[in-house]
Amino acid sequence: MTAPSDVFLPPVAPSDVQRITCVGAGVIGGGWVAHFLARGYDVTAWDPGADAARRLRQIVDAAWPALTNLGLAPGASRDRLHIVDDLADALADAQFVQESAPEDLDVKIDLLARIDALTPQGVVISSSTSGYSMSEMQVSAANPGRLVVGHPFNPPYLIPLVEVVGGTRTHSGAVAWASEFFTLVGKSVITMEREVPGFIANRLQEALWREALHMVAEGEATVEQIDTAITDGPGLRWPFHGPCMTFHLAGGEGGMAHMLDHFGPSLKAPWTRLEAPELTPELRDAMVAGCETEADGRTNVELIAERDAKMIAIMQAMQDVSRRE
Amino acid sequence: MTAPSDVFLPPVAPSDVQRITCVGAGVIGGGWVAHFLARGYDVTAWDPGADAARRLRQIVDAAWPALTNLGLAPGASRDRLHIVDDLADALADAQFVQESAPEDLDVKIDLLARIDALTPQGVVISSSTSGYSMSEMQVSAANPGRLVVGHPFNPPYLIPLVEVVGGTRTHSGAVAWASEFFTLVGKSVITMEREVPGFIANRLQEALWREALHMVAEGEATVEQIDTAITDGPGLRWPFHGPCMTFHLAGGEGGMAHMLDHFGPSLKAPWTRLEAPELTPELRDAMVAGCETEADGRTNVELIAERDAKMIAIMQAMQDVSRRE
Repeated sequence: MTAPSDVFLPPVAPSDVQRITCVGAGVIGGGWVAHFLARGYDVTAWDPGADAARRLRQIVDAAWPALTNLGLAPGASRDRLHIVDDLADALADAQFVQESAPEDLDVKIDLLARIDALTPQGVVISSSTSGYSMSEMQVSAANPGRLVVGHPFNPPYLIPLVEVVGGTRTHSGAVAWASEFFTLVGKSVITMEREVPGFIANRLQEALWREALHMVAEGEATVEQIDTAITDGPGLRWPFHGPCMTFHLAGGEGGMAHMLDHFGPSLKAPWTRLEAPELTPELRDAMVAGCETEADGRTNVELIAERDAKMIAIMQAMQDVSRRE
Repeated sequence: MTAPSDVFLPPVAPSDVQRITCVGAGVIGGGWVAHFLARGYDVTAWDPGADAARRLRQIVDAAWPALTNLGLAPGASRDRLHIVDDLADALADAQFVQESAPEDLDVKIDLLARIDALTPQGVVISSSTSGYSMSEMQVSAANPGRLVVGHPFNPPYLIPLVEVVGGTRTHSGAVAWASEFFTLVGKSVITMEREVPGFIANRLQEALWREALHMVAEGEATVEQIDTAITDGPGLRWPFHGPCMTFHLAGGEGGMAHMLDHFGPSLKAPWTRLEAPELTPELRDAMVAGCETEADGRTNVELIAERDAKMIAIMQAMQDVSRRE
């Protein structure tokens, strides 16, 4: 990242944004369009694909009942979507740009350079990429300092998570601006300090997925058994307790410290094909401190009561949905 | 497993069981006691620990409001819990035994041999172990054929999953009996064809956990970022779509086949420290066939509508719980 002395000067504060441009309007880009419309923005969309306008309106219409159910922002309307044929027209007045082109590095490099050339100075440009680092993608842009990754999860209008990270030539001010903006539009933002292949959530998900593929390949489990193992087991906790808090509770009154001190040896067990790191004192202390921060003063008994209440609510909510169908 | 000609003769059918004995009544054993009581059984419990009876009643009392909320079976009552001091008394009339002793191989080997010696012939004895295989644990028992693993998830009174698997000396009839019984008592049962270290759900969970530890150790993510990445991201889908169905939907109209054929190369990407298996035609076809079985005729559009409805229901249910607190 550039030095702090190199000041980043955005033309508009995150809270003053009114107009957003979405470049690429397939499943991910279209999901972004739906989300920004529901949050009450004017959204301009551009997509070079055949029949793109009709497909985009279909995505937005399909998402709208869910978004209405979740609660629209004042003034939110599908009428505030403007689909244009010319990229320059799409970007001329943009106050924030979200790029969601196909995952092809050459396409991304070229498109981000074109977007950069057509967008008002200082406006932050964010890429939905799941596969590339911004350092790889920003090489042809004249103003790489304002280019960030804002990686959503599908569907972007429902899943809160957005991972924000810059490339080596991104200004730290642009990363901070994007993180603040995504938070304002209702996202759960993780601002990463440095680029990691796959970012964070996909790395975790991918480890689980690869172990699943190994198990099917070796005849250790079927596809259905793997999915049942998650949906009817640990998956019921994951919407409210991540892997660390899950094990913090598994440690009883002693929490994560007890878990690591007493069950650390199980990291040597052949319970997955992924080798564990060495459990150094530093790693142990980092895990314990992180869980204590997350617990935020709640006792083990309080955390368990909350876990049970949320798990029951989830199971009952899913039964209700199934009954309605 | 023994040959099919060696007939397994249980004294009672799974649907005729009325009396269950739980050996070991800590967090897991006590959770089983609460579950069986709520399902309307007479439950006898034995635990050699100091103050075990008081702690057990505390666990059952703490779980009872949740179990009442979920719906008790006719006749279910905490008065049908019998805590006894003598293991022989506990087992004399048992029609099913669930062992939940501490995770220590020597303790398990010895205790399972004692349980086997004191339990009526042919009654199935199930172990809650998460760490050992039944082949390792059944070595001292006179009648190893009736010993199975019935591995629950914490808390056993809420999480439906039970993984059932026998050891090399377990009769296949005992595995079938246990699977039928756990299904009758409201569990989601995975019957494994063979022993795999960590069984299925823990292997998947452990792969994710080890990747998380690596990321913290390398400074790639904090504990809080890892938990947020799951709870606000893919974790929101996992109570209803496991990893395979998640990617089946990510493949669009082409489903898992499209996903593997087009995104297969990403398995070579350094998105986790776990190396992926080779994507052979056999593995590809097994993944596709499994997802088609799970989809059970539902179209991509129907699956997406169901996903969105369930995800919204989950998010709203959790907001409701948080507001009540």
